[in-house]
Amino acid sequence: MTRAVLPSWMRKRLESRLPDWVDAAWWEDEAQLLALAPEAEIGWFDLHVKPPALEAMAKARKLEWLNSAYAGVDWMPLDDLQQRGVRLSCGAGLAAGQVAEFAVMSMLSFARGYPEIIRAADRHDWLSRPPSMREMAGSRALILGYGSIGQAIARMLAGFDVECVPVRSSPGDGVLGPDEWRGQLGEFDWIVLSLPHTPETTGMLGADEFAAMKQDAVLVNYGRAEVVDQDALIAALEAESIGGAILDLTLPEPLPPEHRLWDLENVQITMHLCGIPNEASRERAARRFLDNCERFRAGEPLEGEVDLARGY
Amino acid sequence: MTRAVLPSWMRKRLESRLPDWVDAAWWEDEAQLLALAPEAEIGWFDLHVKPPALEAMAKARKLEWLNSAYAGVDWMPLDDLQQRGVRLSCGAGLAAGQVAEFAVMSMLSFARGYPEIIRAADRHDWLSRPPSMREMAGSRALILGYGSIGQAIARMLAGFDVECVPVRSSPGDGVLGPDEWRGQLGEFDWIVLSLPHTPETTGMLGADEFAAMKQDAVLVNYGRAEVVDQDALIAALEAESIGGAILDLTLPEPLPPEHRLWDLENVQITMHLCGIPNEASRERAARRFLDNCERFRAGEPLEGEVDLARGY
Repeated sequence: MTRAVLPSWMRKRLESRLPDWVDAAWWEDEAQLLALAPEAEIGWFDLHVKPPALEAMAKARKLEWLNSAYAGVDWMPLDDLQQRGVRLSCGAGLAAGQVAEFAVMSMLSFARGYPEIIRAADRHDWLSRPPSMREMAGSRALILGYGSIGQAIARMLAGFDVECVPVRSSPGDGVLGPDEWRGQLGEFDWIVLSLPHTPETTGMLGADEFAAMKQDAVLVNYGRAEVVDQDALIAALEAESIGGAILDLTLPEPLPPEHRLWDLENVQITMHLCGIPNEASRERAARRFLDNCERFRAGEPLEGEVDLARGY
Repeated sequence: MTRAVLPSWMRKRLESRLPDWVDAAWWEDEAQLLALAPEAEIGWFDLHVKPPALEAMAKARKLEWLNSAYAGVDWMPLDDLQQRGVRLSCGAGLAAGQVAEFAVMSMLSFARGYPEIIRAADRHDWLSRPPSMREMAGSRALILGYGSIGQAIARMLAGFDVECVPVRSSPGDGVLGPDEWRGQLGEFDWIVLSLPHTPETTGMLGADEFAAMKQDAVLVNYGRAEVVDQDALIAALEAESIGGAILDLTLPEPLPPEHRLWDLENVQITMHLCGIPNEASRERAARRFLDNCERFRAGEPLEGEVDLARGY
């Protein structure tokens, strides 16, 4: 038998479907997680509050495979897991459609000034002109980060006649390479980020990049906050040298009430709500975990397996 | 020479592009329109305020072709125009993409409770849970009215994995006929209306139809207000027997500040903003008018020509 230490919020979805070689123990809270971690050969330690999850990882000396439903694993001790030979699978792609729906919703809302329409309706005020007349059709979007989320966003935007240009490590027809996109930044109406946070992507969008954008370009970040130099972004927004920003991610989170970003008129903040699990994504997480049990047992690559050297 | 009486807000787009057999006179305001109307063989009498536009139509006894940039012509004296042998071309389709973008924006926003997110951001309040978790993917939409707007909405929704079922006069594979949709109302998450207002469509969605819908179904009206029995809708919304309504159109417009619809939590009102002309749609209207000059001269069917007996 292989000992698996799993979250009790997945119990009803997993318990009856686990293979018979898995001996599951279910943790309810931090204390139970920390008590059970040392026995775990398979672990699922997702906690909204990160320090106890990290402590559990440190204590889990028998761990062979760590699973997570989170898409981003930049908060985990990747070097340490690699040295210990622990395999890591993450939730990349599980919420891609959900995140992309949220991203496209906020882009459409920005284009038409929907927040102003909501505020007017709250005042019972019948607007006679739209706050903004920007059309999606005919606009161009640079998609930085073309994993499952970037691909889903591009697929949805295509239905609105938005021309999407992805950035990939291997450029090709209609695709820009990692050294090409900066030179073309001024040709896009939307700069859509769905990049992981790694040493290479940290602060990738900064003052130089904002200066190169069109004056009405909108930065859309549904990847990781650290990819954007937030102070440089605030300066560009205050100077109105770019058209605006849609930020699901901020530094820090939660954003304190007195933070400057809240009051900038050309910013929409969506509070890292895009990927919060719902019933459908939890079921997808359960199915991936069960598939991965078989793959783990057979020594095959896991679905959503993280390359610990690359960090995603 | 053929006398054309045209709005001065189209002058810069049209004047240099008119064929040489057109002798144009440009009206600036109601008084000029009424003074010029009797000479008009070709007329373009679009006014936001309808009574003087109708007066101009009555005075234009030489009129052979009346053009409008509006998609809806239910406010015009269609019987009278037909008796006088006046041909009518309208703006159907010119703003279809724009209207559809607006409709899909409001559907996505309803699904995720975006108004609540906007209100929280206005309070500098970082929400930890989304107000609503409804996903577009996997939902089903009934598209009542499958002209250019309905088709554009369906094309956009397809990118979100929404299954769209159109209603057409000739049913077929994946298409419901005019007598079939009522029996299947309970199988849809979205009931999307983009119907013209005619005697047949007046009050087409009423108490019986709302009772047949799923309890979380959302009515989305980007066609004409009169197609919905608004009192029955309010009753269904108050009883929460349907999930909500997204209304670009209301009775009356503007909706008075004290109207009940404003305060219903499950309603989003978008103030007939969806199709307000922008630069791009005005240019499309100019191009259609110029094309139609040639078609009119050649005695061919006009683009956007209204069947005066059907009313659209």
